[in-house]
Amino acid sequence: MRDVAAQSDNRGITIDRVGVRDIRLPVMIREKDGGMARVLGEFDVSVQLPHHERGTHMSRFVEILSRWSRKAVAMDEIREMLEEIRGAFQANAARLSLQFKYFLEKASPASGMVSSLDYDCLFEGRLASDGYIFTLGVTVPIMTLCPCSREIADYGAHSQRAELTVRLRTDGHFIIWLEDLVPLLEQQGSYEVFPILKRSDEKVVTEGAYDNPKFVEDVVRDTVLALASLAHVSWFSVECKSYESIHNHTAYAYAESGGQ
Amino acid sequence: MRDVAAQSDNRGITIDRVGVRDIRLPVMIREKDGGMARVLGEFDVSVQLPHHERGTHMSRFVEILSRWSRKAVAMDEIREMLEEIRGAFQANAARLSLQFKYFLEKASPASGMVSSLDYDCLFEGRLASDGYIFTLGVTVPIMTLCPCSREIADYGAHSQRAELTVRLRTDGHFIIWLEDLVPLLEQQGSYEVFPILKRSDEKVVTEGAYDNPKFVEDVVRDTVLALASLAHVSWFSVECKSYESIHNHTAYAYAESGGQ
Amino acid sequence: MRDVAAQSDNRGITIDRVGVRDIRLPVMIREKDGGMARVLGEFDVSVQLPHHERGTHMSRFVEILSRWSRKAVAMDEIREMLEEIRGAFQANAARLSLQFKYFLEKASPASGMVSSLDYDCLFEGRLASDGYIFTLGVTVPIMTLCPCSREIADYGAHSQRAELTVRLRTDGHFIIWLEDLVPLLEQQGSYEVFPILKRSDEKVVTEGAYDNPKFVEDVVRDTVLALASLAHVSWFSVECKSYESIHNHTAYAYAESGGQ
Amino acid sequence: MRDVAAQSDNRGITIDRVGVRDIRLPVMIREKDGGMARVLGEFDVSVQLPHHERGTHMSRFVEILSRWSRKAVAMDEIREMLEEIRGAFQANAARLSLQFKYFLEKASPASGMVSSLDYDCLFEGRLASDGYIFTLGVTVPIMTLCPCSREIADYGAHSQRAELTVRLRTDGHFIIWLEDLVPLLEQQGSYEVFPILKRSDEKVVTEGAYDNPKFVEDVVRDTVLALASLAHVSWFSVECKSYESIHNHTAYAYAESGGQ
Repeated sequence: MRDVAAQSDNRGITIDRVGVRDIRLPVMIREKDGGMARVLGEFDVSVQLPHHERGTHMSRFVEILSRWSRKAVAMDEIREMLEEIRGAFQANAARLSLQFKYFLEKASPASGMVSSLDYDCLFEGRLASDGYIFTLGVTVPIMTLCPCSREIADYGAHSQRAELTVRLRTDGHFIIWLEDLVPLLEQQGSYEVFPILKRSDEKVVTEGAYDNPKFVEDVVRDTVLALASLAHVSWFSVECKSYESIHNHTAYAYAESGGQ
Repeated sequence: MRDVAAQSDNRGITIDRVGVRDIRLPVMIREKDGGMARVLGEFDVSVQLPHHERGTHMSRFVEILSRWSRKAVAMDEIREMLEEIRGAFQANAARLSLQFKYFLEKASPASGMVSSLDYDCLFEGRLASDGYIFTLGVTVPIMTLCPCSREIADYGAHSQRAELTVRLRTDGHFIIWLEDLVPLLEQQGSYEVFPILKRSDEKVVTEGAYDNPKFVEDVVRDTVLALASLAHVSWFSVECKSYESIHNHTAYAYAESGGQ
Repeated sequence: MRDVAAQSDNRGITIDRVGVRDIRLPVMIREKDGGMARVLGEFDVSVQLPHHERGTHMSRFVEILSRWSRKAVAMDEIREMLEEIRGAFQANAARLSLQFKYFLEKASPASGMVSSLDYDCLFEGRLASDGYIFTLGVTVPIMTLCPCSREIADYGAHSQRAELTVRLRTDGHFIIWLEDLVPLLEQQGSYEVFPILKRSDEKVVTEGAYDNPKFVEDVVRDTVLALASLAHVSWFSVECKSYESIHNHTAYAYAESGGQ
Repeated sequence: MRDVAAQSDNRGITIDRVGVRDIRLPVMIREKDGGMARVLGEFDVSVQLPHHERGTHMSRFVEILSRWSRKAVAMDEIREMLEEIRGAFQANAARLSLQFKYFLEKASPASGMVSSLDYDCLFEGRLASDGYIFTLGVTVPIMTLCPCSREIADYGAHSQRAELTVRLRTDGHFIIWLEDLVPLLEQQGSYEVFPILKRSDEKVVTEGAYDNPKFVEDVVRDTVLALASLAHVSWFSVECKSYESIHNHTAYAYAESGGQ
């Protein structure tokens, strides 16, 4: 059976990324306390294809990911996966992104009711001859209350749901845990959001947001300051999107910091 | 060239709907003032397939829709399209849905600045031996301000963007125009939303919403009352979805009224 | 603290469904072999609201779902959840839908390589004074190869990815397991799809699909026959959507059978 | 009325982009033949915010876009819009992206039936002190037929719908028209896709694709060669995503060329 993908190619074009996407597999995420959380992972994985090779054997990606499906992963394991991929494909460079929803428990502010909220998370790794770059990402839902609306109105102020998205990289082997990052980010809005709120909690949230009005610009700047205070963070980007309740469009602000 | 789709079938199974979806075409929508608005239409069109026919010639759907692409359409023209489809396919029953974004101008409440807002609209028709049923649909973005939050907090009240979706049918040939229906629905939230608001407008919207707190239950009931007061409406459904600013989930209420 | 949602209402309008959506929680699904699979669940849950009550205490829905998050669920447990909800809200009727991705292992046809494929599944329950209705749903990716293309071309035939979606209800307490339903549905396309295929497998799939050309109409009819042969199925619907490789639109067929 | 957004800020943080998204407006696109096509545009527009300013007056973005809504736009007009925005906001840098579906007519290969297909297009501009960068983008649906499948199977070969996405920039004021770019890209798959195909057309497409098998790697390399042959193109990226009919995941390849 002739292997067409293994043929040589004479068009002279190196392809930056060849791979597969929309691969869903159960994944175990390493937790801060040493345990592991089973999540639904969605993968995008690729290698660089040299100019002289016609194609890639795509099924190998799925084979490798499937074998990793039951081991706990975090920053270091993503590197191991990339090393295995680079070896299997004899590739100069390999990339992998893993998206998943991660649950953390949180207590409501007055009644202390505990419930679980899900956060969209990202582990992204790139391995090439010049080293390994790992990016951690998370999107945290928050509430924003408009400073302008509060200022000009005799009473009330419009608020809305917003999303705060951070991507960050650290020096060397330093791990930032989602268990630490998420609560830090939740403090950057006008108030946090919760799955369950009793009326005594809703009073605290309503008044707390009114006492802490923020534009998307404010959320981004306060998040930049919070991240800059963390040790070992070498690069980050911050984006806040606010689904304005008085409009049918989205307000946003984006900043990044640190050498790429 | 043998026509496989035209073969007879002996499995004895009538198929309720056979057709095509995700067909995008420019469409002209009839406006209330006699003009027409060019929109981007997305079609879903189908016929009933008798048990003795193996297949349908799907390309005919696209041919017929393409020919209609430059004529102005509303309730009566959807019926003409369905009659043409029923004839071309010699089908007992035919269905068509046309989704589009429709723009209406609106003035901000204090400064009177005029801008255009888009609404997700639906024309849906079914033609069978027992007659023609036309359904008009529209989704209107609104703002809701929580009555509970306002009541329990010493100051402020959380608000958020919400969506009010209505489907309705009328007696006989009576047309309800989007130009009339949309403004009626916009009055059912705590306040309307606008593309452009100057600070004087934002003050009016903020205070107006605070003066008019509504649960999704309230929005649905007030909309039911508003629709029940319209002449010639024989059936309707109402749904309000509110993207709660204090949660990461959606609150909703749904009611329908009238014989199907 | 006054409870605004508990106020009485005099608008005289019963609301069919009041509830919450987009609630994501970890869920345990009962497996056929007695085990349980941890999945990411997405809930939509609601109750009927009598005309004389102004509002619903939405947080109770999330409380109840959260408590169920670590017990294994299937048809009977969905009923228990609905009974608990009906009691907590003193509601006439309650509804719940739970969507999740469920993984099943499958072996490739020649090399026998085992890998996991995910299927979009649905558990939907309605409990009212006239009884309990449970609907099981699943969407299975398949391949379709066009009979017309094969017939008219001297060589080759276009194929594409398609989706086969089934909803079904059974008599009484009879459970249809996803472990049985999914493989039955996978046989209804021109061929199954797989996460991993070696070249020897790809040969089998390619030739197998060519030997078994099917229109969406054929897939739906064959699925209707397959479901009609199952014992205890009282109602079902079947839809096949085919993402045609020669077009930029979707061909589809839909049929249902049995008393609602 | 105090203007909170106009306050000074002492956090010392410049924000790269502050603006609005999800703005939908009718737009006129300049056509190659001098005419203009009315489309539904979706905008994302932003400015850089200096460290000493607290906020941006977001409504001005919508005002400016609304005024442009009825003039025909292309590369040069996007620059004018950005200059107007930079002036209105006294900003160092401004960005704008406009996404729209653009229709082009095409004739089927045997019967010559003419119909309209829609393509997802992008105009993106950045204006800063170091100049203006305009990026043209388009996604073209194509068909891919697998070379490996054709090679190893005694008959048939799996095919599927795929998408070819190109972004490109030119030297100076040179315009590449969508009317020229789209047909060039449509030739890079195993075959083009069409809205309407009669049986005589379907024969040509089926056999043509079988005669021209391509991996996503082949599509990307051939597109790179085609774009490299165009005059005045200074940078481009090419991505092909193939919705494999034998899998439930996506194969892809990505390459870029030229200085950023």
